[in-house]
Amino acid sequence: MESAPEIPGTAPREDPVPDPDPDPVPVLDLSLDGASLTARLVDIPSVSGDEKPLADAIETALRALPHLRVDRYGNNVVARTALGRAERVVLAGHIDTVPIADNVPSRLEDGVLWGCGTSDMKAGVAVQLRIAATVPEPNRDLTFVFYDNEEVAAHLNGLGHLADDRPDWLAGDFAVLLEPSEGQVEGGCQGTLRVGLRMAGQRAHSARSWKGANAIHAAAPVLARLAAYEPRRPVVDGLEFREGLNAVGITGGVAGNVIPDECTVTVNYRYAPDLTEQEALAHVREVFADCGVARFEVEDSSGPARPGLTHPAAAAFVEAVGGEARPKYGWTDVSRFSALGVPAVNYGPGDPNLAHKRDERVDTDLIGHCEERLRAWLTA
Amino acid sequence: MESAPEIPGTAPREDPVPDPDPDPVPVLDLSLDGASLTARLVDIPSVSGDEKPLADAIETALRALPHLRVDRYGNNVVARTALGRAERVVLAGHIDTVPIADNVPSRLEDGVLWGCGTSDMKAGVAVQLRIAATVPEPNRDLTFVFYDNEEVAAHLNGLGHLADDRPDWLAGDFAVLLEPSEGQVEGGCQGTLRVGLRMAGQRAHSARSWKGANAIHAAAPVLARLAAYEPRRPVVDGLEFREGLNAVGITGGVAGNVIPDECTVTVNYRYAPDLTEQEALAHVREVFADCGVARFEVEDSSGPARPGLTHPAAAAFVEAVGGEARPKYGWTDVSRFSALGVPAVNYGPGDPNLAHKRDERVDTDLIGHCEERLRAWLTA
Repeated sequence: MESAPEIPGTAPREDPVPDPDPDPVPVLDLSLDGASLTARLVDIPSVSGDEKPLADAIETALRALPHLRVDRYGNNVVARTALGRAERVVLAGHIDTVPIADNVPSRLEDGVLWGCGTSDMKAGVAVQLRIAATVPEPNRDLTFVFYDNEEVAAHLNGLGHLADDRPDWLAGDFAVLLEPSEGQVEGGCQGTLRVGLRMAGQRAHSARSWKGANAIHAAAPVLARLAAYEPRRPVVDGLEFREGLNAVGITGGVAGNVIPDECTVTVNYRYAPDLTEQEALAHVREVFADCGVARFEVEDSSGPARPGLTHPAAAAFVEAVGGEARPKYGWTDVSRFSALGVPAVNYGPGDPNLAHKRDERVDTDLIGHCEERLRAWLTA
Repeated sequence: MESAPEIPGTAPREDPVPDPDPDPVPVLDLSLDGASLTARLVDIPSVSGDEKPLADAIETALRALPHLRVDRYGNNVVARTALGRAERVVLAGHIDTVPIADNVPSRLEDGVLWGCGTSDMKAGVAVQLRIAATVPEPNRDLTFVFYDNEEVAAHLNGLGHLADDRPDWLAGDFAVLLEPSEGQVEGGCQGTLRVGLRMAGQRAHSARSWKGANAIHAAAPVLARLAAYEPRRPVVDGLEFREGLNAVGITGGVAGNVIPDECTVTVNYRYAPDLTEQEALAHVREVFADCGVARFEVEDSSGPARPGLTHPAAAAFVEAVGGEARPKYGWTDVSRFSALGVPAVNYGPGDPNLAHKRDERVDTDLIGHCEERLRAWLTA
């Protein structure tokens, strides 16, 4: 059949073609044990940016639980009890993973579950879902947060989007982030500050170097100061943190026969949560005050979070889950809760040393252990 | 007319079509004064790689001189007298220039000739050609060398190709390279050695820096040593040289949150001609012997040349041209003559500070001055 001529407004209208069937939402059976549920979560790929199928599955499964109110914002899902308890606890986890490296689907072998996201952090997400499904009357009101884009640039982070646009959904007295911590409570997190220290000089031909000023040589006192630096180990809320001030980059040079007029040392200060971001920057400036730095340029800054273990809910949590709380050296999203005034800790079954690795895996015993400890705390 | 079918061996042969007229060889009138001849040379562009028209012109002009034997190798032209004199002197110059920067054709104004290659070094080439044309019976046998590709990578250098493949054409007791030296004798040249000093370390997350070893911090003693280094000013064959040991590059760093396991400081040692290349390298190793360098990697090495001013021909030359000889700090092709056992100096009318510049120019008085001084020396 020949097409009718295309005359705007007069062309014959066709009936709208129905969309092909959308992909069915994957089904999550929350009655599975934690290890099996983790395997199921791993087998629904959710690399950062492609979390929709998993977010759909989580939302659908939670909506089947009558004791929870479920909200969604983008691919972030938040489910809450509303029992009028004296305290509210937030259990949070990201649902995205780093890119798959030939390690999906998951594989269970001798009590170890292998696969992308097992440790970081679908085992933790499985624990959240198991608590959501099996503790309908907790002793504290509960908020479950499942968010996207944690493994990529900070401005994409779903928890950050919720904090900016739906902060009331995150309200609570205490938060547990189920990031991998080998079943140990890790309190707070250190801040991280990256600053470029720019050294100045003057170009000249290297055959007549006395006519120039070498910016790389000018960096000598900066490197000497770094090499001699004694990092602090302050105790904050009962936990000993461990700082570090390190060069993470250096660059200088114009050409093989030119005295360079620029050299930049990039330093990374990892600092304990007794300092603010401003105090951390002031410290870096002070350390290098007499080193001839031409300019300090802040490249990146993420504030720390205090452990908050003195809060009654946190103290009860540590007592319930057992073990000795330890400090978290790396920066994590607990800092976002801290910025909202919610003390937070990391506590999850994964192993942080296996995160992002091709041979990522999780000890399934720890999944059950974390789930039991949380249930004990929330039903005591 | 239709083509005949193409049957090999039986197709009708056509008469060979004559090539279109090749570009005519530009004419050089060697009876022009040095300044006018320089202008003519500048107006025949000869950017490195495109020297053929100028090489053709030089070859043709020299072949018209019955007292010279002319040879050609690529775009390198060598012309020699064979008078059986006790000594042979080589006058050498490169005919290429850096890329033209809107500064061709040349322009004469108030005794100053402007244009690409005026100083570096067509004024010198003009002096060579004037001596070739006007001194048919010199007191020393003469060899004139015109070579290509001096302004580009060393392996393309025409003088290097002659040294490798036609070393007998370069034989002599003394050589004058007519590189720009403002009409002053510059003796020898310093050597240049570039070495990468590789520092080692061990990667770790920067939040747990104590688990790694920072290779950038490890470079602190290297930079301190460089900053404190006192360069030598040795006197060689009566000329005071001036060394330099400088970082010309530094690079290190893996990511903004990683303790780096590698850092490389690239140092450039410019050294006086009382050291060999081997001694220069030994010196660099010694300077940094106790600085924890994991590996020394030689990136580039070009040997120095002694001034050779004690040679009778050279002494007579300095006396004849007048002024006080001074050392050459930068590396030049005199080193290639030195490697062939021919002492060599730089002596030319150009100004090295104007080389490679958009406003390159030459004082025409100096062109005539250099020509006269050379003629006086060769006809005394």
